Amino acid sequence: MELLKNIVAVRNYVSQAKKEGKSIGLVPTMGYLHEGHLSLARKARAQNDIVIMSIFVNPTQFGPNEDLERYPRDLERDKKLAEGARVDAIFFPSAEEMYPSNFATYVHVEVLTEVLCGASRPGHFRGVTTVVSKLFNIVQPDRAYFGLKDYQQATVIKRMVEDLNFPIEIVTVPTYREEDGLALSSRNKYLSPEQRQSARSLYRALKLGEELIHSGERQVEVVKEAMSKEILAHPETKIDYIAINNAETLQPLDEINGKILLALAVWVGSTRLIDNLVLEV
Amino acid sequence: MELLKNIVAVRNYVSQAKKEGKSIGLVPTMGYLHEGHLSLARKARAQNDIVIMSIFVNPTQFGPNEDLERYPRDLERDKKLAEGARVDAIFFPSAEEMYPSNFATYVHVEVLTEVLCGASRPGHFRGVTTVVSKLFNIVQPDRAYFGLKDYQQATVIKRMVEDLNFPIEIVTVPTYREEDGLALSSRNKYLSPEQRQSARSLYRALKLGEELIHSGERQVEVVKEAMSKEILAHPETKIDYIAINNAETLQPLDEINGKILLALAVWVGSTRLIDNLVLEV
Repeated sequence: MELLKNIVAVRNYVSQAKKEGKSIGLVPTMGYLHEGHLSLARKARAQNDIVIMSIFVNPTQFGPNEDLERYPRDLERDKKLAEGARVDAIFFPSAEEMYPSNFATYVHVEVLTEVLCGASRPGHFRGVTTVVSKLFNIVQPDRAYFGLKDYQQATVIKRMVEDLNFPIEIVTVPTYREEDGLALSSRNKYLSPEQRQSARSLYRALKLGEELIHSGERQVEVVKEAMSKEILAHPETKIDYIAINNAETLQPLDEINGKILLALAVWVGSTRLIDNLVLEV
Repeated sequence: MELLKNIVAVRNYVSQAKKEGKSIGLVPTMGYLHEGHLSLARKARAQNDIVIMSIFVNPTQFGPNEDLERYPRDLERDKKLAEGARVDAIFFPSAEEMYPSNFATYVHVEVLTEVLCGASRPGHFRGVTTVVSKLFNIVQPDRAYFGLKDYQQATVIKRMVEDLNFPIEIVTVPTYREEDGLALSSRNKYLSPEQRQSARSLYRALKLGEELIHSGERQVEVVKEAMSKEILAHPETKIDYIAINNAETLQPLDEINGKILLALAVWVGSTRLIDNLVLEV
């Protein structure tokens, strides 16, 4: 497996692969890999001749009071895991390589980014779409892989790809969960054993919402209220948002109907966790 | 010469060319071609196997009170001129093809776009960088060609290409001028014979500024004042801006020194014209 530390190294690697007519799959990550990332890598492995994983804790997608500095990093561990998933090359740039001092260009998706995590984290998705545009232009993949735990992110990226005509197929992969339902996230590392117990409340609340809807409840507020109670029954939890939105437009629903997104963001202690379910009603 | 009316047609055309290992030059235009555009096409012809010219009056780069509706259009004339310059294909999309109703993604370059024409035309450069990003992703050229009459535009595009890592070389081509110095522009068509005479004031003012600087004048205000007088000596003229800025950062100078940009925008009747000179001092 190759470790590509700068853009020129990727350009050379990619140019050789393209000359040989090889297809390229890109798996963008912020590292500290878990099974969720590896399921993206395995999907990419099955669909492409070459799999490139990027590992970059992207500063532009963190707000000023967020966890950029303490975000977990462990390149040696990531290298072993990526190699195990038969990744061909890791792109591991520095922040200076990606954002030189005179950097001034941003890609912004409107509307879809104004709700859910976009409302809680101003500028977050602008950072995501900017860095993903850069990665797309550097790696020039045929396909790029995103996990559905970050459902809004995947939706925003698909919108960007369609609007800006990137010649790239976006492939989404289901959320990978622990046995008790907790969605895998590098941020789970922040949780104390007690908080880890409380973190189960996210999936429990989603499943409760699903159950209510499947048994006929159609009032948004009734379902949200039940989900909220489930979460707050666990210690150290604070709700950022609970949303029942249209799964395509991401806009809030008046009545539960069609393809819907149940999504939530919950603080467990000082750790913000997100999760979601998509239902056909 | 091929006329490609939609994105799928371009994708097929480009995919074939790439399979054959051919290099592609892109000449983005808004049509109503003149010798300036054709000099871009000839440069592209000399440097690439395939030359694609886009003709698209891009609505997102026009302000609400600008000349989008009356901007001159003549596809039949353009086809003949492009063919004469040995363009291989024209991409001539509709506004609906480029901007479907749910379009929501914009590319924005900060700082460089806040001065000069960017200050006079809010949102203009956001429209330019957005449509050029789309054209780059649709055509996937090796090189793209921009005229230096739109000096700020060329500078903004170069910044965008560097920041977003587009794998594309930006080639700039000198301003093409009439015998009396007027820079060629599709908007010159708007001018009455009397206004055409007044339009000579732009180049005259630039040459006067250059002369003053070459003879030792270093005070920005003195040069601008002389240029202003030259312009206003012509009937029907109104100054939008006269600027003496750093030619790389585009920021205003306190003292005339280094590589400088003399730039101006002047209303002649209801037509806004721009021109510039770059000097090494």
